[in-house]
Amino acid sequence: MTRWKLVIEYDGGNFVGWQRQDNGRSVQQVIEEAIVGFAQEQVNVFGAGRTDSGVHALGQVAHFDLVRDTDPETVRDALNFHLKTDTITILEVEAVDQNFNARFSATHRHYQYRILNRRAPPAIERGHVWHIPVELDWRAMNEAAQFLIGHHDFTSFRAAVCQSDSPVKTLDALTVERHADEIVIDVSARSFLHNQVRIIVGTLRLVGTSKWGVADVAEALAACDRASAGPTAPPDGLYLTRVDY
Amino acid sequence: MTRWKLVIEYDGGNFVGWQRQDNGRSVQQVIEEAIVGFAQEQVNVFGAGRTDSGVHALGQVAHFDLVRDTDPETVRDALNFHLKTDTITILEVEAVDQNFNARFSATHRHYQYRILNRRAPPAIERGHVWHIPVELDWRAMNEAAQFLIGHHDFTSFRAAVCQSDSPVKTLDALTVERHADEIVIDVSARSFLHNQVRIIVGTLRLVGTSKWGVADVAEALAACDRASAGPTAPPDGLYLTRVDY
Repeated sequence: MTRWKLVIEYDGGNFVGWQRQDNGRSVQQVIEEAIVGFAQEQVNVFGAGRTDSGVHALGQVAHFDLVRDTDPETVRDALNFHLKTDTITILEVEAVDQNFNARFSATHRHYQYRILNRRAPPAIERGHVWHIPVELDWRAMNEAAQFLIGHHDFTSFRAAVCQSDSPVKTLDALTVERHADEIVIDVSARSFLHNQVRIIVGTLRLVGTSKWGVADVAEALAACDRASAGPTAPPDGLYLTRVDY
Repeated sequence: MTRWKLVIEYDGGNFVGWQRQDNGRSVQQVIEEAIVGFAQEQVNVFGAGRTDSGVHALGQVAHFDLVRDTDPETVRDALNFHLKTDTITILEVEAVDQNFNARFSATHRHYQYRILNRRAPPAIERGHVWHIPVELDWRAMNEAAQFLIGHHDFTSFRAAVCQSDSPVKTLDALTVERHADEIVIDVSARSFLHNQVRIIVGTLRLVGTSKWGVADVAEALAACDRASAGPTAPPDGLYLTRVDY
C-alpha cells in the first residue's frame, strides 16, 4: 500500500466544489473516478482545502492510498489521461509517508483573489475574475487589510454554515496589489473559516469604492457579527494557489 | 456621420475567426449585430487583423461609421450590453477622423504566442495556450528567432491560401522568453502574411525540441518554400495584443 500526494490544478466553474455532493459533479468525485479508471481501486481522496463551487485551484493538494505498486510518473500521466475531458489536471505526484495527511499536515494555505477592475467586462478571463467596473482605491484596500492580519476572532468573516470549532484564526499575510487592470489579493494562513477569504474580499471592496473608511474594517472585525462585515465576493476570482507542509 | 475606432478583446475559441464566413459566427458579424441592436444601423466593421478561428485578441482594432450622434462611453457600454452573452468585449471607443482606417492606417501589429511547457495539460488555460509536454530549449528558440528579424521573403512562412501581393515582409521584433511554466513569443511587424506567426512558432518548436539546429531556421527562410519550414502551430496560443497607428 502506497500513500500518494497529488498537486492539482482545476477550473472550479464546472464543478459543485471540491467535496462530493448530491447535486452535481465534484472535483473529488471526478478524481476518484479517474483512479478507478486507472487502477480499478475504489478509494477516498482527501483534499487540503474544501473549495466551494466555482472556486479554482492552481495548487490544491490531496492524498489517497493505492494497493497497486506503481511509480509517480505513471500515476500522474494515467490520471491525466482519465481526466482529459475535465478541467482538472494533476501537476505533481509523490509517494509519501503513511503519516502524511493532505488536510491535517498542512502548515499554510495560500489563496489568491483576482479582481478585473476596468469598465469593460472580461472576454478571455470570464469566470476567472470578479469584474468590478468602478475604479477601486487598492491602496486604501491594502491599508484596511492590515487590520485583519494576526490572531483574531473572525466571526464577522465566517459563513453561517461554517463547521469550524472555533472562529479564532491567524492570518499570516494579506496584501492588495494592482497589476495593470487587475487587483490581486494574496492571503495566507494555516487554515481558514468557510468563506473567510470571499467575505474579506467583499469587505475590502467597500473600502475600495470609498463606501467604507479604512478603520471600518477594524470595527467590523471587533463586532464579531457576520452582519457587520461586507457581502461574500463571488467564487470566480478565487484560487487556492499553494499548500505548504 | 462619425467614424468610431474600437479596441476589442475576444476569446477566439467560440468564433470562426474575425471575418464573416458562411460556416459559423465571426467576431465581425457579432459586433455588427450588436451595432444594429444599439443603433439600428446596418454597418460594416473593418478590423486591423483578420484573425483565424481560435485566435484571440487583447487589442484588436476596428472602425465603423455611424449616422446617429452619440458619445464614446455610450457606444462602449451599449455594445458591451449587446455583447454580454458573447466572449467579446469593447475595451475602448474613440471618435476618429474619416481618414482613419483600422486596416490601412496601422503602422505596427503585435502578436503574442503562449506555450504551456509542462508535463500536465492545462486545466484553467485550456484553449488559451499550446500545450507542449516535452521541455523546450527556449534559449535556442530565441537564438534561431534572430534569423527571421528584418526584411525577408517569407514564402516559407506563408499559408498556401495567403492572398498577400508580396511574400516580402519586415519583422521588427521576435523574442522568446520563459516565465515559469510558459514560453512566451512576442512578434511585431507592420503587417503579416497569413499564418506567418503560427508557422514561425511551429518552426521554432523544432529548434526547442532539438530536432532542428538553430541555423536550420535560416536555411528554411532562404529556401522560399513552405515545405522547408515547420508545421503551423495551433490557434489556441495566439493573441493579437496591440495595433499601433
